[in-house]
Amino acid sequence: MIKLYTYFRSSASYRVRIALNLKGMEYEPEIVHLPSGEQRGEAYRNRNPQGLVPALEDEDGTVLTQSIAIMEYIDEIRPEPPLMPHDMMERGQVRAMSLLIACDIHPLNNLQVLKYLKSDMDQEQDAVDNWYRHWVGRGFTGLEAMVQKYGGTYCFGDQVSMADVCLVPQMFNARRFDTDLGPFPKLVEIDERLRALEAFEKAAPENQPDAQ
Amino acid sequence: MIKLYTYFRSSASYRVRIALNLKGMEYEPEIVHLPSGEQRGEAYRNRNPQGLVPALEDEDGTVLTQSIAIMEYIDEIRPEPPLMPHDMMERGQVRAMSLLIACDIHPLNNLQVLKYLKSDMDQEQDAVDNWYRHWVGRGFTGLEAMVQKYGGTYCFGDQVSMADVCLVPQMFNARRFDTDLGPFPKLVEIDERLRALEAFEKAAPENQPDAQ
Repeated sequence: MIKLYTYFRSSASYRVRIALNLKGMEYEPEIVHLPSGEQRGEAYRNRNPQGLVPALEDEDGTVLTQSIAIMEYIDEIRPEPPLMPHDMMERGQVRAMSLLIACDIHPLNNLQVLKYLKSDMDQEQDAVDNWYRHWVGRGFTGLEAMVQKYGGTYCFGDQVSMADVCLVPQMFNARRFDTDLGPFPKLVEIDERLRALEAFEKAAPENQPDAQ
Repeated sequence: MIKLYTYFRSSASYRVRIALNLKGMEYEPEIVHLPSGEQRGEAYRNRNPQGLVPALEDEDGTVLTQSIAIMEYIDEIRPEPPLMPHDMMERGQVRAMSLLIACDIHPLNNLQVLKYLKSDMDQEQDAVDNWYRHWVGRGFTGLEAMVQKYGGTYCFGDQVSMADVCLVPQMFNARRFDTDLGPFPKLVEIDERLRALEAFEKAAPENQPDAQ
């Protein structure tokens, strides 16, 4: 069986869990305990030299990293149900929304960055919180506009896509940091609808074996 | 003709310029002057609500954002020469290397972030430089290991791929900030080889119409 190196609260792992559930692909979760730094230990780094989760391990032992790369791979080896529309420009828009989250929001706000601001730059919690909200606010402003333009029931039209898979973990993260979601009504509405779907619910942090 | 909203020094625009050149696709450059904040003005935001470059505008006026999404699109509409291998897991590794740069290095080190650290967090230039080198060092450590494993003449085997297209602008950026590249011999070697190729040279910041 394929293995997924995961941690319950990791947004990027949460994305891949949703994608695997949508495809109906079974996997064995291998918990990497981020708070104790297990991801930076030698054993894990031999699998993923970047020392980050998630990583997917195929049955032959090949390891694939980066959540977006993993989802594109899953979508290629198991095309149904598709994570993207068929039309090339429409696929482009779904990828653009996904990457807006994966490149321009999440990397600025993940735990290792917030830790660096606090310990290496001696920033107070208030300043760190402002930083968090600044980047998530900017990103969500762009995303809300895109979803107003292209969205329907979900982020792109009426089919669940990779953009939705990226949205839900980012919204979970934003709520954890008490972000004001008032300016993003369409994102809030779609997120609520998505979280009611079984594939999303099963992947939620609170439903993982390592949830604390 | 398609248009590319670009700025000579923007690493993400640089990626797309290289990709278009590799495909032999002509485009009209539309310069967005980042230092004066043109990307945040209403005219540009009507095209890209995120207010970032690059953006590709198709002949019918459809705008596509996010450099990785643009490259995937280009690779779908103009498959030759391919930006990725044919094998699905190999494509995955090329995407993982590309996303390592596009998600885990570049967003932490681009101009708007460094400006925030300086003005909103009152950090001295030294602290900002340390921040820069910390994230590029971490990312390149992971990437060097991947390229040692999968690379040949280029980042993945002996064919130019999207990973190479992402590498060269990031190396350009790292040199601008006086990053010690000693620990990354394979990246340095591949970057030098790539920069000698016409598609890469033509896309270089110093060869753009807006180069200062």
